[in-house]
Amino acid sequence: MTTIEDKYKALATDNAPGQETRQKTGNIEALMRGDVMAGTPVDFSHGDVDAFAPTPGSFEAFSAGVEVGGKQAYTEYRGALDIRTELAAKLEAFIGAPVSADDGLIVTTGTQGALFLAVAATVTDGDKVAIVQPDYFANRKLVQFFGGEIAPVQLNYINNDQNAGLNLGELRGAFEAGAKVFLYSNPNNPTGAVYAAEEIDEIAALAAEFDATVIVDQLYSRLLYEGVPYVHFRAVSDRSDNIVTIMGPSKTESLSGYRLGVAFGAPKLIERMEKLQAIVSLRAAGYNQSVLRTWFNEPDGWMAERVALHQAIRDDLIRVFHGAGFETRVPQAGSYLFPKLPTLGVDVHDFVRLLRLQAGVIVTPGTEFSPHTEASVRLNFSQDHTAAVAAAERIVAMAHRYKA
Amino acid sequence: MTTIEDKYKALATDNAPGQETRQKTGNIEALMRGDVMAGTPVDFSHGDVDAFAPTPGSFEAFSAGVEVGGKQAYTEYRGALDIRTELAAKLEAFIGAPVSADDGLIVTTGTQGALFLAVAATVTDGDKVAIVQPDYFANRKLVQFFGGEIAPVQLNYINNDQNAGLNLGELRGAFEAGAKVFLYSNPNNPTGAVYAAEEIDEIAALAAEFDATVIVDQLYSRLLYEGVPYVHFRAVSDRSDNIVTIMGPSKTESLSGYRLGVAFGAPKLIERMEKLQAIVSLRAAGYNQSVLRTWFNEPDGWMAERVALHQAIRDDLIRVFHGAGFETRVPQAGSYLFPKLPTLGVDVHDFVRLLRLQAGVIVTPGTEFSPHTEASVRLNFSQDHTAAVAAAERIVAMAHRYKA
Repeated sequence: MTTIEDKYKALATDNAPGQETRQKTGNIEALMRGDVMAGTPVDFSHGDVDAFAPTPGSFEAFSAGVEVGGKQAYTEYRGALDIRTELAAKLEAFIGAPVSADDGLIVTTGTQGALFLAVAATVTDGDKVAIVQPDYFANRKLVQFFGGEIAPVQLNYINNDQNAGLNLGELRGAFEAGAKVFLYSNPNNPTGAVYAAEEIDEIAALAAEFDATVIVDQLYSRLLYEGVPYVHFRAVSDRSDNIVTIMGPSKTESLSGYRLGVAFGAPKLIERMEKLQAIVSLRAAGYNQSVLRTWFNEPDGWMAERVALHQAIRDDLIRVFHGAGFETRVPQAGSYLFPKLPTLGVDVHDFVRLLRLQAGVIVTPGTEFSPHTEASVRLNFSQDHTAAVAAAERIVAMAHRYKA
Repeated sequence: MTTIEDKYKALATDNAPGQETRQKTGNIEALMRGDVMAGTPVDFSHGDVDAFAPTPGSFEAFSAGVEVGGKQAYTEYRGALDIRTELAAKLEAFIGAPVSADDGLIVTTGTQGALFLAVAATVTDGDKVAIVQPDYFANRKLVQFFGGEIAPVQLNYINNDQNAGLNLGELRGAFEAGAKVFLYSNPNNPTGAVYAAEEIDEIAALAAEFDATVIVDQLYSRLLYEGVPYVHFRAVSDRSDNIVTIMGPSKTESLSGYRLGVAFGAPKLIERMEKLQAIVSLRAAGYNQSVLRTWFNEPDGWMAERVALHQAIRDDLIRVFHGAGFETRVPQAGSYLFPKLPTLGVDVHDFVRLLRLQAGVIVTPGTEFSPHTEASVRLNFSQDHTAAVAAAERIVAMAHRYKA
């Protein structure tokens, strides 16, 4: 039996993005080569909401929620019905499949909250869950926390093909071995890969064949680069009792400070998620829910400009890393870049600490996303353009300095 | 083995406060006696933040958080260090025992979030947990969700003695039977009972004797009525590795719409709670955390006035219920009242629905708090004074109408 100590050991946050200030640097000085590099510090562990500001009108929408008063402070656990009604219509139009405001949608405390509740609603002791490697680091932790077993499925993402590179044979194998749930992010975190239509079709066919539940995290599906086709899983599969889609306005829209997300799909699972949310946090903060009125409702041209600005940063960073010979997929969507470093003479976790101390650059080590990607680091490039490019150049310089 | 269906059946929210709008009323008309009563509708399932407004300056503190920008949006999972530092000093002064900003305090998504994380950090499959009956309804659900077993301890609260009425013999019995955790609210929810110094001393002694962890929910500990002494558990017991205290500004301060709470105490447990919060919601909404700067920092006289206004409502409601011969403890703290209804000719859940449909009054059935309190209903009397008294009179009239 798993002890509670083991359970929490598996939830280690020592290398998690945003927790760097809690790290003890130990005797890292002994490893140091060279001096501190000049330059504007950049924290690539998350997007910079000062560089890319929250959606216009978001604060005003919050204020209006406070003005509404008690009705907005105490909503149903799944969120205020009027807000769910507005959202359902917008999400339906976005994904091209029905979304029910009454019984098929829940407002959560961020996309993280939605993921937590969705995994809790589908996974219990001993259940096998197919998880992509690499993928968002919390996916694995969530499955383990609820006593599930991970059936890993590789994503051969270091290519610049039109598909994401999912090993569909491994996915079939996971289902054959008994996996009843498949959880994946599309666009993929940390690589920015987008699943091709054929991959989505095949995932849908396999899920149907093995009667599996699919939880798809589409957090970044609004930040698509030029010419990239995107297929919503729910639009392809009509197994509406077995699909939960997760989204939120924390990334492209820079509304992370409000902690808002949504999950929509199978009423049976949404109901479980609401029951659990009732004891986890009661609800997403009532006033904050009002901010969702700005979502899919941005000023004309605002989203297109935001995408173009991110694409320009992406292109410059790719130039830096490809120029240095680092294998790096060109992200098709989102604001993550996952360059592979050359072989280093120091441990990757030490290198990440050295980057912070000597180059003023915070990145997230690849080990968070897969046991097979320790040579990579993740950058969230939703940053000041100039500072991000200079910081990328310092990463390259540091990698050369610490080469094996 | 518990199936996932059973797990969620135990989390039923059908009769939970705030969820009334989701209830199907079925063929309740067949039970109806008499007409609809005139009067201002009152929702006693939670406090009315329109009647008792949020702390002055709370919205401005939120705005200031938004102005801070990225640093406030992305805090450590356990909350922003500067805010934790301010809070630790204030909480230390309030409870009369040390609180460490660095490793002994976490900001959570409401007091509910703190309870969820604290139970998760201490209870796993098969663990016995001593739970008071009656007590806050989520306590039982949380223990069951994490696979724990409940060892019930009765609270003989229908008295107006100076103690809460905890059966200390049963608490000893629970520990002897193997309970390793004791979870209780003080002031008690739903009765407003406050534990006497001798009760706290004895709980501390028993917890020490059996090396048990104590989680104490002190949510209402600032709303104490005239002449009521209050003892902070942590000030009595120095077993600092085995105590977690939970509080929040959602009730007395009417800040529920911001979803903020705190837990403080044993560093080992706070660390687990942070690791779990990282996958539950990442953090309490960053901007919202700023509102905690107003906590224990209210304008002079504001809190005293708020307490006096609640005491006046309490006194009038007690007059109504005692006048009608309903057994009702006089709450020593908080804004809950838990009157016992006379024997009715209809099921209590039907009566609660009838109250809503015919009297415009929402209350929470006593079954939520203990299997032994189905004759009681809970009222949160943080309401407009006049409307609350009139609504209480309608409850009495309805109870007479539906008498057995």
